[in-house]
Amino acid sequence: MTVACETAFVAMMRALASDPAARGLRDDAAVIAFGKETLVITHDMMVEGVHWLPGQDEADIAWKLLATNLSDLAAKGAVPIGVLLGYTLGPDDARFATGLGEALAAFGVPLLGGDSVSGTPGGGRSHGLTALGRATHCPVPGRDGAQPGDRLWITGPVGAAMLGFEALCNGLAGVETLAFRRPVPCLDDGVALAPWVSAMMDVSDGLLIDAMRLAQASAITLDIASAAVPFAAALADDRRYDAMTWGEDYQLLFTLPPGQHPPCPAHAIGKAHAFGGTHLLVDGAPPRGRLGYVHG
Amino acid sequence: MTVACETAFVAMMRALASDPAARGLRDDAAVIAFGKETLVITHDMMVEGVHWLPGQDEADIAWKLLATNLSDLAAKGAVPIGVLLGYTLGPDDARFATGLGEALAAFGVPLLGGDSVSGTPGGGRSHGLTALGRATHCPVPGRDGAQPGDRLWITGPVGAAMLGFEALCNGLAGVETLAFRRPVPCLDDGVALAPWVSAMMDVSDGLLIDAMRLAQASAITLDIASAAVPFAAALADDRRYDAMTWGEDYQLLFTLPPGQHPPCPAHAIGKAHAFGGTHLLVDGAPPRGRLGYVHG
Repeated sequence: MTVACETAFVAMMRALASDPAARGLRDDAAVIAFGKETLVITHDMMVEGVHWLPGQDEADIAWKLLATNLSDLAAKGAVPIGVLLGYTLGPDDARFATGLGEALAAFGVPLLGGDSVSGTPGGGRSHGLTALGRATHCPVPGRDGAQPGDRLWITGPVGAAMLGFEALCNGLAGVETLAFRRPVPCLDDGVALAPWVSAMMDVSDGLLIDAMRLAQASAITLDIASAAVPFAAALADDRRYDAMTWGEDYQLLFTLPPGQHPPCPAHAIGKAHAFGGTHLLVDGAPPRGRLGYVHG
Repeated sequence: MTVACETAFVAMMRALASDPAARGLRDDAAVIAFGKETLVITHDMMVEGVHWLPGQDEADIAWKLLATNLSDLAAKGAVPIGVLLGYTLGPDDARFATGLGEALAAFGVPLLGGDSVSGTPGGGRSHGLTALGRATHCPVPGRDGAQPGDRLWITGPVGAAMLGFEALCNGLAGVETLAFRRPVPCLDDGVALAPWVSAMMDVSDGLLIDAMRLAQASAITLDIASAAVPFAAALADDRRYDAMTWGEDYQLLFTLPPGQHPPCPAHAIGKAHAFGGTHLLVDGAPPRGRLGYVHG
């Protein structure tokens, strides 16, 4: 399978997803008016060899599957209502169940349903999870509301997940790897921020590529000041560009009107300008090379 | 992977799914109070080699993935709001998109979101679909409300999907195979029935095994009169037991108080009694042999 396949498939799905609630499949979640409230719903998958390492603790895979979907709800300022699991049976289902239970308890989310199926011998396994939430502020934040003059903010450092992944590849499994194995979605920050932000998303594929997506959706240019970006304490100075293009830290990236201060700890890392021919600048210049993880 | 694995995993998930909305993972869907309305949500998966034949038209796989999940909503008397797709890229993504588009249009349901991932070379593919609906009647029907004295009903014939599967295995692809390839969920019947039924479910794994599940959930005995069961017109007389233990016809199976007639075409096929030591009888005797498809 190639990147081109997924790009083509997503384009076909966009042609089908004409309902406004789908947000053109370009946002972190679907947003649906229901009764007098607003539902937020998302479904993300994880694949062996892509989203986790073969042999990785199944409890961590379960944790991450839940955390990454809840991070999409966080980006919408939504409070989780519950989740449904689509699970492929594997080598240690009991460890998966243990990790899922730990994560559900940690984030206070009920398991509501789902399905489990047998895997194919030799085939890579994949799991899916649907997370359902209740919007706490309407209009629900999107990626498309940033205005020229807005400041760009991030809730916390990037790079810890990358370092954790590298430690895990080197056979470590302790606290150094925790940020990769057990990310924590910024649910409370998302709720606090939702009334104030002009645009918001979670950083799952890399700060640079996700900032570019926010800028594209808002039809602006974002200029990131690299010296202002917060990095994981253990990160070497010469790895900063790597950290800005590696994802999975699940911080919230958002814009606020000038002069507006965020209601939670956050770092101002850049500024929005009227579109100037390219959507993303780093220290005033277009970044060279890879921006992050590309789904296609 | 063995049946024992899935049984054990489902037991572990039931231990986690303590929220009442999950209905103990023993119903067709989760039922959630939301605002002043009631949400119904379900997630079912399909696996290559289990739920579809390798080489089968991808458009039919897409259709069936949507139809089977909507059938769970039908069993709750819910009107679909939208669906999210978890898709593993494959040999003909364009045909899948075509079939999904046809099914979404046929059932009037919007695609709201989802995810797509690359498959593993040589590995079986699996897809998941989450269907979200709005309950039209509260309390939302469950499997657990049948009372002694109730009549057992079914909306239409069984056996057509089995014959369709067999025709497909024999290389046919025309109208004879349609019931297997493109089932139609009984959405309108489900809405019409919801205010009247004491219990309801869809027949996905076989009439006998699903009737037994309804009887177990209701703590009663169901006695099915085999001569009253409607069968597909093309079914040979000596295949009737096979048809009662083969699923995928997606009829609605339900109970009504004695004297109550259904508001849609349906066939009375049995009666509920106080539990008499076994949950299912056929013509007054416990059935011998296989009852249907067992997930474990």
